[in-house]
Amino acid sequence: MSDKAAKRARFEGVFDKIADELIDYLKQNGMPEEAVAWYKANLYHNVPGGKLNRGLSVVDTLEILKGKELTDDEYFKAALLGWCVELLQGFFLVSDDLMDASITRRGQPCWYRMPGVGTIAINDSFMLEAAIYYLLKKHFRQETYYIDLVELFLETTFQTELGQLIDLITAPEDNVDLSKFSLQKHHLIVVYKTAFYSFYLPVALAFRVAGVKDEAAYKTALDILIPMGEYFQVQDDYLDAYAPPEVLGKIGTDILDNKCSWNINTALKHATPEQRKILDDNYGKKDAAAEARVKELYSQAPISIPERFEKYEKESHDQLTALIAKVDESTGVRKEVFTSFLEKVYKRQK
Amino acid sequence: MSDKAAKRARFEGVFDKIADELIDYLKQNGMPEEAVAWYKANLYHNVPGGKLNRGLSVVDTLEILKGKELTDDEYFKAALLGWCVELLQGFFLVSDDLMDASITRRGQPCWYRMPGVGTIAINDSFMLEAAIYYLLKKHFRQETYYIDLVELFLETTFQTELGQLIDLITAPEDNVDLSKFSLQKHHLIVVYKTAFYSFYLPVALAFRVAGVKDEAAYKTALDILIPMGEYFQVQDDYLDAYAPPEVLGKIGTDILDNKCSWNINTALKHATPEQRKILDDNYGKKDAAAEARVKELYSQAPISIPERFEKYEKESHDQLTALIAKVDESTGVRKEVFTSFLEKVYKRQK
Repeated sequence: MSDKAAKRARFEGVFDKIADELIDYLKQNGMPEEAVAWYKANLYHNVPGGKLNRGLSVVDTLEILKGKELTDDEYFKAALLGWCVELLQGFFLVSDDLMDASITRRGQPCWYRMPGVGTIAINDSFMLEAAIYYLLKKHFRQETYYIDLVELFLETTFQTELGQLIDLITAPEDNVDLSKFSLQKHHLIVVYKTAFYSFYLPVALAFRVAGVKDEAAYKTALDILIPMGEYFQVQDDYLDAYAPPEVLGKIGTDILDNKCSWNINTALKHATPEQRKILDDNYGKKDAAAEARVKELYSQAPISIPERFEKYEKESHDQLTALIAKVDESTGVRKEVFTSFLEKVYKRQK
Repeated sequence: MSDKAAKRARFEGVFDKIADELIDYLKQNGMPEEAVAWYKANLYHNVPGGKLNRGLSVVDTLEILKGKELTDDEYFKAALLGWCVELLQGFFLVSDDLMDASITRRGQPCWYRMPGVGTIAINDSFMLEAAIYYLLKKHFRQETYYIDLVELFLETTFQTELGQLIDLITAPEDNVDLSKFSLQKHHLIVVYKTAFYSFYLPVALAFRVAGVKDEAAYKTALDILIPMGEYFQVQDDYLDAYAPPEVLGKIGTDILDNKCSWNINTALKHATPEQRKILDDNYGKKDAAAEARVKELYSQAPISIPERFEKYEKESHDQLTALIAKVDESTGVRKEVFTSFLEKVYKRQK
């Protein structure tokens, strides 16, 4: 087994323990067998199957902060919090898939499309969220930082929901209106909907377990990780249109789906009136020819998405590197927390 | 203005303040105008229009515990927590209406049926829940009992979701199977889905504000309020079939909707094989004749719902009265908290 696979397997072992604890909670409350089985299916279908980057980040960050191998207790704590981030992600994905009428997720049918599920998925998504706080109480109640963990999750949840709201009302799939789009809206959507929970949350959780108390450290983490999360998402948007599907592992559908992506917002900013008309007429249509028309335009001057992305990528990397260089390690933070993150996301091909 | 109307108006004034605080939070986060307006509409459509019994119970309970008129600060704290219970209720109702495909709520279209809303209502329901924890932090962070309030809401939320899960998988509207029903299931559904958040939560919150710390007091409250909540719901189920619509203010639809009600479960327990067949053939059908057939059977021996309800009501009242008589007031609780509740719910006609 590769190092990476071993790491993942150890992390997945913690999920089995967590799932057992949650299932026991239901049993202790006298829940009928079919409800217990249902919750178990909900947990296993929706939480462990992804890339687990967010969850593993908690462990990675704690390792860097400690500067040595984690004890079993430290490992378990970090992994449990990592799974809580994955539970939060499960809560968002199950409900997002229903709101977006998505078909598949991680190569399986979306949960709401499983036999007999349907809109029960809404309550099931709630029950993934509720699991977080049951687990935090069970395992962290005695820690002085317990309330900090609870607040981190609650506040990040609200922020993510705000991002989701802006996204949903800005880019409804059935009503294309590009005048609602702007790079400023894109920035807000990306930061709120993704960056807080995917980039800041895992690191801030590891800080708490490591005993980092200086509020300045959290501010520093926010100042670096939010732009890094934004950069990551811009890259994601760029790759949706420009990565070869055989490298990306899927076919990008942002143009067809009327997504408020970095590409379209950048295009809108630089388009000539003639180009703008073509974008208005072709964006968000469920039509391969319209999609191809938009893609073609993306690369044409003065829109020139590839050149603009290259410039953005370089500037973003320079800015993040400069921010990391200024990190004050006396607050208990280590620069490596951020450099290791940056290395993972910078210039990825998929 | 009547006393009751004045009380409600004062309570509603606190909601306006809360809504303003939440709207300010969005503005401070740079949310676009249309997102701010959307959230405001979500809050006002879904939170304040109901009977407000749950929210007002927090204020009433604190008044009884204090034994004198509340100071402005005490009133505000209790009312704010009352609104947090109403926000929790809003979160549940918005999502329940979507899951049940309901048409109207409180005389208005359900939120998801409002123009442009649709499944965005799912995220909107999340944002009602998130508001609770924003408000708790803003107003109670300095209190020693802050974490107790947070945990009370989080734990009650999980319990309610468990109740909702059992209800959804036991009584799906489109697949009638009375073999899934039982009085035991009904008990679990009612206790988890309704009693914890409607009966125990408001009282436990007021206990915290009043400074009640003795865990035995919370145990006592639970031991009385959970059966009281169950009694309340059984009564609700009974009235659905037996109260004259002109008194009830609506037409009961539990039989048509395949609801796992006290009536059907009691009927199933006592039905002869012939009666059982009629129930199987007619329950949960969208058909007035089938509904009438079930209703007729309800009153026939040995099912005899009205006699059995009368007996249940008396026994439940006796049991609750006995429990209240044993309350140890030295823990900071007052018997009157429970007697005033019992008076409100016992032998109501609607």
